[in-house]
Amino acid sequence: MNKMNTTTQVDLIDLYTSTRQYTESICHALKTEDYVLQPIGEVSPPKWHLGHTSWFFETFILSKFDVGYQSFNPQYNFVFNSYYESVGKRVIRVNRGNLSRPTVGQVYDYRRHVDTQIVRLLNEIEISSEIQKLMILGINHEQQHQELLISDIKYIFGNNPLFPVYDEGYPIQKLSKKRKPIVCQEGLYEIGFDGPDFCFDNEKGRHKVYLNQFAISSELVTNDEYLEFMTDGGYENFVYWHADGWDWVNKNNIKAPLYWHFHQGEWHRYHLDGFKPIEPDAPVCHVSYYEAFAFASWKGTRLPTEAEWETACNKFDWGQRWEWTESAYLPYPGFKKEEGAIGEYNGKFMVSQMVLRGASEATSPHHSRPTYRNFFYPDARWQFTGIRYII
Amino acid sequence: MNKMNTTTQVDLIDLYTSTRQYTESICHALKTEDYVLQPIGEVSPPKWHLGHTSWFFETFILSKFDVGYQSFNPQYNFVFNSYYESVGKRVIRVNRGNLSRPTVGQVYDYRRHVDTQIVRLLNEIEISSEIQKLMILGINHEQQHQELLISDIKYIFGNNPLFPVYDEGYPIQKLSKKRKPIVCQEGLYEIGFDGPDFCFDNEKGRHKVYLNQFAISSELVTNDEYLEFMTDGGYENFVYWHADGWDWVNKNNIKAPLYWHFHQGEWHRYHLDGFKPIEPDAPVCHVSYYEAFAFASWKGTRLPTEAEWETACNKFDWGQRWEWTESAYLPYPGFKKEEGAIGEYNGKFMVSQMVLRGASEATSPHHSRPTYRNFFYPDARWQFTGIRYII
Amino acid sequence: MNKMNTTTQVDLIDLYTSTRQYTESICHALKTEDYVLQPIGEVSPPKWHLGHTSWFFETFILSKFDVGYQSFNPQYNFVFNSYYESVGKRVIRVNRGNLSRPTVGQVYDYRRHVDTQIVRLLNEIEISSEIQKLMILGINHEQQHQELLISDIKYIFGNNPLFPVYDEGYPIQKLSKKRKPIVCQEGLYEIGFDGPDFCFDNEKGRHKVYLNQFAISSELVTNDEYLEFMTDGGYENFVYWHADGWDWVNKNNIKAPLYWHFHQGEWHRYHLDGFKPIEPDAPVCHVSYYEAFAFASWKGTRLPTEAEWETACNKFDWGQRWEWTESAYLPYPGFKKEEGAIGEYNGKFMVSQMVLRGASEATSPHHSRPTYRNFFYPDARWQFTGIRYII
Amino acid sequence: MNKMNTTTQVDLIDLYTSTRQYTESICHALKTEDYVLQPIGEVSPPKWHLGHTSWFFETFILSKFDVGYQSFNPQYNFVFNSYYESVGKRVIRVNRGNLSRPTVGQVYDYRRHVDTQIVRLLNEIEISSEIQKLMILGINHEQQHQELLISDIKYIFGNNPLFPVYDEGYPIQKLSKKRKPIVCQEGLYEIGFDGPDFCFDNEKGRHKVYLNQFAISSELVTNDEYLEFMTDGGYENFVYWHADGWDWVNKNNIKAPLYWHFHQGEWHRYHLDGFKPIEPDAPVCHVSYYEAFAFASWKGTRLPTEAEWETACNKFDWGQRWEWTESAYLPYPGFKKEEGAIGEYNGKFMVSQMVLRGASEATSPHHSRPTYRNFFYPDARWQFTGIRYII
Repeated sequence: MNKMNTTTQVDLIDLYTSTRQYTESICHALKTEDYVLQPIGEVSPPKWHLGHTSWFFETFILSKFDVGYQSFNPQYNFVFNSYYESVGKRVIRVNRGNLSRPTVGQVYDYRRHVDTQIVRLLNEIEISSEIQKLMILGINHEQQHQELLISDIKYIFGNNPLFPVYDEGYPIQKLSKKRKPIVCQEGLYEIGFDGPDFCFDNEKGRHKVYLNQFAISSELVTNDEYLEFMTDGGYENFVYWHADGWDWVNKNNIKAPLYWHFHQGEWHRYHLDGFKPIEPDAPVCHVSYYEAFAFASWKGTRLPTEAEWETACNKFDWGQRWEWTESAYLPYPGFKKEEGAIGEYNGKFMVSQMVLRGASEATSPHHSRPTYRNFFYPDARWQFTGIRYII
Repeated sequence: MNKMNTTTQVDLIDLYTSTRQYTESICHALKTEDYVLQPIGEVSPPKWHLGHTSWFFETFILSKFDVGYQSFNPQYNFVFNSYYESVGKRVIRVNRGNLSRPTVGQVYDYRRHVDTQIVRLLNEIEISSEIQKLMILGINHEQQHQELLISDIKYIFGNNPLFPVYDEGYPIQKLSKKRKPIVCQEGLYEIGFDGPDFCFDNEKGRHKVYLNQFAISSELVTNDEYLEFMTDGGYENFVYWHADGWDWVNKNNIKAPLYWHFHQGEWHRYHLDGFKPIEPDAPVCHVSYYEAFAFASWKGTRLPTEAEWETACNKFDWGQRWEWTESAYLPYPGFKKEEGAIGEYNGKFMVSQMVLRGASEATSPHHSRPTYRNFFYPDARWQFTGIRYII
Repeated sequence: MNKMNTTTQVDLIDLYTSTRQYTESICHALKTEDYVLQPIGEVSPPKWHLGHTSWFFETFILSKFDVGYQSFNPQYNFVFNSYYESVGKRVIRVNRGNLSRPTVGQVYDYRRHVDTQIVRLLNEIEISSEIQKLMILGINHEQQHQELLISDIKYIFGNNPLFPVYDEGYPIQKLSKKRKPIVCQEGLYEIGFDGPDFCFDNEKGRHKVYLNQFAISSELVTNDEYLEFMTDGGYENFVYWHADGWDWVNKNNIKAPLYWHFHQGEWHRYHLDGFKPIEPDAPVCHVSYYEAFAFASWKGTRLPTEAEWETACNKFDWGQRWEWTESAYLPYPGFKKEEGAIGEYNGKFMVSQMVLRGASEATSPHHSRPTYRNFFYPDARWQFTGIRYII
Repeated sequence: MNKMNTTTQVDLIDLYTSTRQYTESICHALKTEDYVLQPIGEVSPPKWHLGHTSWFFETFILSKFDVGYQSFNPQYNFVFNSYYESVGKRVIRVNRGNLSRPTVGQVYDYRRHVDTQIVRLLNEIEISSEIQKLMILGINHEQQHQELLISDIKYIFGNNPLFPVYDEGYPIQKLSKKRKPIVCQEGLYEIGFDGPDFCFDNEKGRHKVYLNQFAISSELVTNDEYLEFMTDGGYENFVYWHADGWDWVNKNNIKAPLYWHFHQGEWHRYHLDGFKPIEPDAPVCHVSYYEAFAFASWKGTRLPTEAEWETACNKFDWGQRWEWTESAYLPYPGFKKEEGAIGEYNGKFMVSQMVLRGASEATSPHHSRPTYRNFFYPDARWQFTGIRYII
């Protein structure tokens, strides 16, 4: 994707086609029933992801640039719009899971239709820079939904008492045992994206930040280490927690990361390969910001800021877990929302959420970079989130 | 069914088999996706109904009377149990719609398995009166779920903005225009079930009641009449409503019966034949007890008690709508809960609910009788409920 | 009060005056701060009771019959109206506790003003039967609020960790140890109020009811007996409970009657004389309908209906506790709401509540009669409620 | 206070005494009833503030340094503790308004007692630097509650339909009409507190920040300007709002700042001098962060960051309104929580809240400085909050 700005027509069509296929390949293990559910507000039904990503291309490419285009089904704008207030009345988010129709088959038909029309259009017309920009945005948007698909499928399966297996051979992440501090000297650094390639609007505005000296761990926190925190009473001692975090722990009776169950005298976890004992060497996963913060407090240290993370990240391996930072999700200097519906993409979420950096095992190939800013509310746990701390 | 106490083995097997088939025939128009949803707490996913009715026969017949019977899947007790606290930990009711597995196919396999085993068992053994009683209970239980299936499917379809059609030719109820008062004289009457045939425990204990003279309408309230109430400001004037009902109207912004929509200058309704203008002559449907009461108040009259209804019902046609009565659901004199899980069937719901009498277009054949006591909370609207008043 | 219909002017003024004074005497032990709180929705601030009962006389007597009467403060209609939708916009019930003004002193001024004007008016005019009827209603209304004042003060004190004492010498109810069954034969009886004296509209319509033979306990359930139920796991076994009751127990973690605390190895209770060990022989108090029902189920019996209670009550002592019955609060045959705001008094609450019969130690003198129908939701516990069962 | 580190014994006692008196002077206009209420969770009853600030000195000074000190009332720790988890079980925050006892008189007695003992102790002992530090902290803590007292009293009065007047002559803030941009050049700046005088722990750690060039308004936004935003449909157009803010507007039906009412064709506001038409030239007050952000978006600009604000603030007048910044409340580099209960003061709130800078008309004298970091949730409006934007 780094060469996207010099993409030829053929390359763009190839990239579009392979992205669209990859989305569907994630759903290979699903039964029809699995496509329909929304067990909690954050988790969308897989068929909604399939429809919504298609709706994006229909709305922002076909409807705008394909003269005389007739929408596949005018009601789909209502059903598959997500948070784009300027495009039409949306099905409110928590209701996505109450719609059995359109069926999964109809949603795949919709994908087929959009794919055919997009490829035809791209072949027929001169691709303006505006179209190219929107196509690349749509592809990146779809890649984001690929990761959401994986985490949402995990939630749908992991909250079913039958614990269905998604893939028996789903790979398990392991960590190096050698941990060393990565030291960065005090000074003026630059963070943020700059360059001709694609990035989201929230990464733009490369700018100077002044950092004090710090050292960051070369490795993520493992299940083993996290169990020490649990065994040491981490969830029972308010002193490690934010006030909000402590309320969250008590109100929800939190005792362990999401998907962990104490079963027959041993901690187990659900993962896409099924219900199994936890792997001590795997990086801890599915923790909230509250938990990441409490763990770091217990350790006598803290999480990195996003500027520290970005400055140091080329000196350690990352990409297994989305790493909670101590930074709130706020605009970079000079941030401007784009005009129209596209402008709703990122800016309007810049309050009350925390930044995560890196990427996870569920992130799509070619969809990560050091400047990427992911963000979730501090209690979110269904993403593949982990912990790296300041040493 | 009236002759159930003299049923031969063959008759019982026939009755079982035809009841089971009728349940599945209700689902003929469903897509796989339609089986999975639970849009509100009261509505269960169709596949849950299919599984739960099978679980009933497995738990109360096969596990008890078939020596060495192995349950089809031990976890299904957890998944398909409903409110039987004494049988095991149940999936709490509102979570039924969060389970994509077992799949619809697996649920039908479960039905096949239970059907085969029940028929085999009934052919092999001497059918004791206990088994016969439980079989008849299970069949009646399944008939109740047949009606719930229809109303739940209607809710799933009727709350989808695409308004799927269940059956284009689904028949529409019409009413005679001639309305006359059925007069019953003051005196001592008997109500409640007595006799050798099946009834639910809540109908038992035929007992004397003293009634003052009353006259009851020979016909149900029509859509036309209900529209008059609406047009006359029925939903805006507290004077017709219970205090609880008035709160309910305002908190939920109620303006019309469930499934009614004001569309292009005209009231429409969703029904199993699709989204269409309301039929003036059809009996009003999907009203809560609060609405039935308010309508009667507006009319200057009241709803009948269940004793009045039962006393008069042989003089008018009934069976189109469940008819709200002014009676709370309470035990009859001498009511005793049965021992064990079967005892949880009815008695434990005898608080805060209202009695409905009659039957509806969705009630299964052979499943209605004058002594039948249906019951719902006063705000329930998703059943085929209507209004008959005292003249 | 029995001779109210022949009351002379002087008698009516005396009755008014003594009733008004009795209300204030209940508040003798209050500090200013105690008048202001509303710790739960059901409990009103004492100063609100003082104001609301005055508002009743101002609105229904002075404003209607005293030509040229100027309201003491026009905003008080907004502040002290309770549930009379037809009289003006009310402060919604849960907000009563958020108003520090009018001050307690101003509320007493308001009472003084209303008292002076009422007495003046009654002395000046010919007292029509309409005025007499409304005055008697207002006096009975105030007597109801006298009982609410006592139970609300108890709640305000009993939920303060300092457990303030209202009156060190507050008398404790004790029960006879001799319990015998009161038997009533099967047959046709009459219940409901008939006669020239005052009663509430919900008691009117003396009517025939047919009762089967029953026997009712001559004594209420004691704390001792209730402790047996608790010790026997009554709160842990769903089999004794309604489904709604069982949910209530679990959601609210109910383990004992309201105001009971397990303290230093022994059950204590808060009462108006302070925090003390429970008295074994006192009639159990502050139980919900759910608990009364569960206790009776555990005992293998049931609560009486209100018709049974009324039929038998002249053969046993009553008046210590409001006694939960198995009857839902519904209209008697022929019940008609009165016109206007007065009609809102009782009828609009006739859904989802249960009838209590008798009276309690907190009921005002001359305010009880065998036909009195009190009513609360099945989870209410802050009134002086107890249990009498069918033997 | 700037010379606090060289304070003599006498100065410290004077400062303590005058601070304590100032707190009580704020309450001069209160009736007993006004001290008791907690209409919303954020607002504490005035008597609680009086008790809690005394509890602070009793717990952290008298109990620790006064040998043999007996607590005034051991239960007061339970009643007047706020969020100090390590000191004992607290009355959960929303319950503060349900306690009529201790009475206002008792709370004043408690204050008298603590004051006498503190003054005696300070006269008797050698004042260690630890004691001095804790005394100064307690005095600053009390000053914070002075401001809360004013805003909480305003809420208690401003939500009463009688709109009580606190002080007829309460001064109204006015703004200069001349607005000019204060320009700061790009470069490396330092922010945070450094020096021997008192500051809160969250201000410590003076550190370098790199800022791009910016210009900030010399004046706050006026009511007039804010009305333009309202008139231009600011509350009806999602494009100006965060997604969370837009939900907040719609769920709470927000149309104007807190305390604004449209009355007889004109916007009025409640303020401590009563209910009056809004003053066009006064700085807008009682807006949430969501509203401040939306206003700035509508204006085509943004709020300052806290670093920008601190860098520029010596070039403009501030102190009328707490000014929302675009900065989330997060730890400064090197921030460390103190050991024990004192450490709970600030650090545990560092998530999901926004920083406000400056001070307000309700802030106590000598309690403001350029490095002060106030913080509230983005929906909070009951403080004297306003808007200054980047030009």
